Order: sequence, then structure tokens, then C-alpha cells
Amino acid sequence: MPSELPADSVGLVSPQTAHFDQPLMLACGRELPAYDLVYETYGQLNSARSNAVLICHALSGHHHAAGYHSLDERKPGWWDSAIGPGKPIDTNKFFVVCLNNIGGCNGSTGPTSINPATGKLYGGDFPVLNVIDWVHSQARLADLLGIDVWAAVIGGSLGGMQAMQWSITYPERLQHAVVIASAPKLSAQNIAFNEVARQAILSDPDYHGGQFYSHDTIPKRGLMLARMVGHITYLSDAAMGSKFGRELKTDKLNYDFHSVEFQVESYLRYQGEEFSGRFDANTYVLMTKALDYYDPAAAYEDNLSQALAQAKADFLVVSFTTDWRFSPARSREIVDALLDAKKNVSYLEVDAPQGHDAFLMPIPRYFTALRGYLNRIEL
Amino acid sequence: MPSELPADSVGLVSPQTAHFDQPLMLACGRELPAYDLVYETYGQLNSARSNAVLICHALSGHHHAAGYHSLDERKPGWWDSAIGPGKPIDTNKFFVVCLNNIGGCNGSTGPTSINPATGKLYGGDFPVLNVIDWVHSQARLADLLGIDVWAAVIGGSLGGMQAMQWSITYPERLQHAVVIASAPKLSAQNIAFNEVARQAILSDPDYHGGQFYSHDTIPKRGLMLARMVGHITYLSDAAMGSKFGRELKTDKLNYDFHSVEFQVESYLRYQGEEFSGRFDANTYVLMTKALDYYDPAAAYEDNLSQALAQAKADFLVVSFTTDWRFSPARSREIVDALLDAKKNVSYLEVDAPQGHDAFLMPIPRYFTALRGYLNRIEL
Repeated sequence: MPSELPADSVGLVSPQTAHFDQPLMLACGRELPAYDLVYETYGQLNSARSNAVLICHALSGHHHAAGYHSLDERKPGWWDSAIGPGKPIDTNKFFVVCLNNIGGCNGSTGPTSINPATGKLYGGDFPVLNVIDWVHSQARLADLLGIDVWAAVIGGSLGGMQAMQWSITYPERLQHAVVIASAPKLSAQNIAFNEVARQAILSDPDYHGGQFYSHDTIPKRGLMLARMVGHITYLSDAAMGSKFGRELKTDKLNYDFHSVEFQVESYLRYQGEEFSGRFDANTYVLMTKALDYYDPAAAYEDNLSQALAQAKADFLVVSFTTDWRFSPARSREIVDALLDAKKNVSYLEVDAPQGHDAFLMPIPRYFTALRGYLNRIEL
Repeated sequence: MPSELPADSVGLVSPQTAHFDQPLMLACGRELPAYDLVYETYGQLNSARSNAVLICHALSGHHHAAGYHSLDERKPGWWDSAIGPGKPIDTNKFFVVCLNNIGGCNGSTGPTSINPATGKLYGGDFPVLNVIDWVHSQARLADLLGIDVWAAVIGGSLGGMQAMQWSITYPERLQHAVVIASAPKLSAQNIAFNEVARQAILSDPDYHGGQFYSHDTIPKRGLMLARMVGHITYLSDAAMGSKFGRELKTDKLNYDFHSVEFQVESYLRYQGEEFSGRFDANTYVLMTKALDYYDPAAAYEDNLSQALAQAKADFLVVSFTTDWRFSPARSREIVDALLDAKKNVSYLEVDAPQGHDAFLMPIPRYFTALRGYLNRIEL
């Protein structure tokens, strides 16, 4: 926390929990008998209930997108740079909703919840989720909040897939979809990286088939490796080069098998270590699976235009030049399909060195475009 | 093995072992009191001893580069497509030498050898090696074989680094250096991928600090993960896409945490599994370390031109368009430094979809250029 709350912060916020008792049918064929969704809101819902914006999180995100939970909190929510009074997603205009998706590990029902059928934690028996399941659960939350139509559904990476899916599944329920640093489906290489991360977790002896909770352990090594390999794909070669280059950790090389020699090794180990202490291994597996499965065109004869022809929303699509996880070419596939389906789409390719992570950063051209697009929305 | 030996094969070959009793001082400050080098030769050394070519292997390579060890051998040596009578590295003209480097796990002294100081296997106590150590040990082998000057030193990837280092360390002892799909030093991203592979091995409970041999186990899970992540970096996104795309393993999705859903996952697991059964974990760690440390410019005020100014050889440098491990830009750094140092250099950038692995493949334009360059060498 800064010594006082910044003027453009949404300030102190508290998560809320919505409980849903009606079963949710999932794409995998199983059903979730009941579930909780933890969410936060920023700004005020107007009397016409027309100014609500949904923020969808990515792989390791959660409901705490902006502001502070307490004055002791060291850092604000994960997208605080974008959400607040006068910020690109302006809480003076919009009522912003962000939730932790089901399957998550930040309070919503997921692998660390009790499975009512067994009385034990779900663990690796939690149903495997698809993006469309999240969209359905988010629609239930919208119902609860009295939001018939979102002014916009916004997300980066896996969050962008949710925004896209909203436009296809509930075309009447959103005016705008903002799809940032995303892709219409994973490539073989994308899946391959996810598979390495999953294998790191699944093969860790401390994983115990996903039931590590009852063994009083966590698959820390596997989760650490998963995060390390993921992290490399979030950064560009150039960003890693300018941040670390070949800088040494100490003033000389140790020349042994186990020492950290280079700063970049130290950084990666730290990232992995920190993550493995706060994230659930089963959620990680589940999120990577949802990414792999995402393929909205599959239900439309593998024709993305046909899938997006369902949409009634207008679109803003954003990509970043050095993003090699979901490169600009992947965003252009979305744009081309939208144009082919005669939809309104604005496309911005931002020249940025930060790689995939750029979508989380306050890059001037990106934020100016996002602000401009959202400012023009008539409520 | 094919039913009969192909006419352009070097045929049946047998590895030989050279023993060296004179200690080898290593760049890390330690010394190797004695060592064996396992090597193969193809073709005949001419009476002037002027037609010898050294092949340097990459991370997981070894001395068996061409021909067959027996009529039962399923596949020939790892670079059989390039080495043989009438092939680009023509054994009708050249006497070809390929060895397993020290630190390796195919017969030369390495982590699986006895440490004379302790009477036990070296394991993780084997000295960490630098590329220059290999070059020195290869020079000893040249002495033994009566080769004062190599007609060419040839290598791809980590092998290319050895060829480059030869030209700097023993400028009088080679006429040509052929540096394929290589780089003058690793980038932060390259090091990061190596670090993930190392951590996978080092953190495997079966690694036992490198002394797993005496625990009657191998760090199979770690080695498998290391190979999987390495393998992704050897292939291009495009190559993976055209080979696997999003093809499913079976005819429908399983929707669970542990099943293989996509062919690319199955392929990667197979690659990792197969590798973990035949390669030594300590050698893998050691090879990635040698890659990380390689930086010939470091001894020359970080000036690569100054380093390469030592060279008297002529150079052929080859890169492949979709290689993102050591991209064409990295080869151009070498070429630019050579031109700056007023050396003779031919440079070929091959348009090939296979990524880094292209250097092992008989791509027509690549092989035509390699053949042409080597044919023009006057012995």
C-alpha cells in the first residue's frame, strides 16, 4: 500500500460471494451441483443498469482486479493500472465486475472446495472446464446482479477467449467485446508448452493424483517448473534480453551443477518459488486444459467466421508486436473472421517490447486506444 | 538397418577409444587427471594428412555420426545423411572424425565414469565444462591421430560453437570452420529454457544431488521434462502446426486431468520417455551449462570481432529461417563480426520450416551449399 490511497484508485474494496444452488451443466458432460463465485465490483451500477463491464481473468488471475483489500496490502489488484476513476476502464462511467472463475483457487468453487458427493476436497476430480462453462457461470452472476446486457466484456489472453465466447453464446447480452492478446484456439506449440507444465505437476511425487491436500503436502517442485516455463512464454526474447541479458548473479561464475550463475535464472526460480506458494496445482492443470480445449469454430464446421457470425457485439481486438505466445497473427485471424462475418471491429497492433505480458501494462498507445474505445460507448 | 547397406553409406563402423594420461586443465579451474575419448572415423587419411575433418556434436549427440555398428542397428549414425561416399561431407575425399565429448554419456569420460580421487562415479561432481575444454581435448585427439591441421571443423548448434572456438584457440590448426545453426553466446531466453530443464532434473527427488547411480534409480521424470521443453525449442511453431496441429490422440476428448488429448502431447511424452531411458541426467545438466557459459567475446573486451580476429580459417555460416532457438539474426552476428575482422566468410540463410532441427536434415539447398563449399577445399 502507498502511504495514502492514490486519487485515481477505486480505494478499499471487499470481495463478495454469490452462491448458486442450481446445477451447472458443463461442456465435459458432468455437472456442478452448486457453486460459489467470489467477485468484486468497482463504481456504481446506473439506474438503467446499462453501464456494467465484465472483466474476465486469465490463467492465474482472480477477482481482485483493482483497489486494495486493506491499508496493509502491498500491491493493488492485478489490473489496477486500467481500472479506476479516470483510468481507461473508467469507474466514473462504468460499473465494473470481476470474478474468480469456477475452478479457480481464490475463493470460488474449485479443486480446493468440498465435493458434496464425497464430503472430501475435489482435488483432481474437479470437472475439467471449458471456456463456455465460465461464460455460463458469469451469465448467472449477471442475472443475480440484475445485469441483462453488459456494456462490455473485456479480457486479455484466456480472458479474451471468454469475451469472444460471450459474443457467440449470449449475443444479446453484451454491446462490446474487448479481446486483448488472445487467440481463436491454441497452436500445437501452445499446447506443447501447456503439456510440459502439466507433466511437471502430474509427475511430481507430491501431487498424489491430485489429492495432495490429504497428504499434507503440495507439488511445489512441479508447480514451480510449470510457472517457470509459463513465464518464459509471457516475456519476449527482447524483454528478457534488456532486463537480464547475460548479467551474473554474483561477480564471478561458480562452475558447478547447481548454482545460479545468471540473473535470469535467479529471477525465474524466484517467480516459480513465489507462485508455488500461492497457487493451487489442480487449478493450474485445469486452466491449461481450458486453454487447450478452446476452439469456438469447432461447433461451426471449423469456420471461425461462422462462429463469430452469431455475435451482435462490436469488437475491439488488441495485440502486441513481441507477443509470441499469442502473436499478432493470431489476433488478425479473429479480426479477419469478424470482417468476413461483417461485424464492426477495431484492431490495434501495439508496438511493445514486453511480449505477452504487455496486456497487463499501462502502455500509452494501448491505454489511449482502450480509453478512447470505451469512452465512445453510449450507455 | 536396411536389408542391405546403402551404396552411399560408410558401412559398418566401430568406435575406438583413445586414452589420455596427461591431465587436462579446465576453464573452471579444476583438472581432469586422465580421460578416455570414444571416436569413430570414416574414409581414409591421405598421406599428406591434409584431408581430415572434425565433426563436433551438439547437446545430446555422440561419436556415432555415420554408418552402422551392426547389421541389426535400426538407424544409422545421427548425421548419416550428410556423411558418406558422395554425400556433402564426402568420405571419398575426406577422413572424417567424430568423437563423444568429455562429460558425455556415450563412452568418453563423464559423470558415469569413476573419479580416481574417490573410487566412485563422478556423478554431479564431474567438473563443469566449457566449450574451450572440448576444443583442447579434441586437439589432443588430433595429435594422437597425427592430424596437425584439420581441413575443416564442422558443427551445428553447440557443435558450431566448438568450430568457432577452434578457429580462435588453434588458428593454425584448421583451414575451414563450418558453423551451422549456432550463436556467439546464449540470450537470456536461451539460458532461461536451459534453467527450466536443469531445475526439472535437479529438483527430481530421484536425482539425489547427482549421485543417483548409487541409489539404483534415475531422475526419469526430470530428464523427461527437460527433453520435452528442449524439444519444443528445436521445432518451429509452423513445423509443430503442420505435423500435429490440433489433431486428437483418439476420436474424442476425455476431459480429465491426466489424459493425453492431443497428438502433440503424446509425441512430446514419447520423446521425453525415450530420451530419459538413454541419456545421463548429469551429462544433460553439464551440456546446458556449457551452452550457457559459451561467450568467446568475453576474453576480448566483449568484442566478438576481436575474438574472431584470431582466426586464420575461412568460414561457412549457415542458419535456418524458422530456427527460433538460434535464429538467423544470431548467425548474422557471427558473420558481421567475421567481416569486421576481415575474414573470408560465406553465409547461407536457408528457407526451411523445420526450426532448429533443420540442421540435422537433408534440405536440398543446405546440402548443396555444404557440398559445394567442401568440394572447393584444396587439400
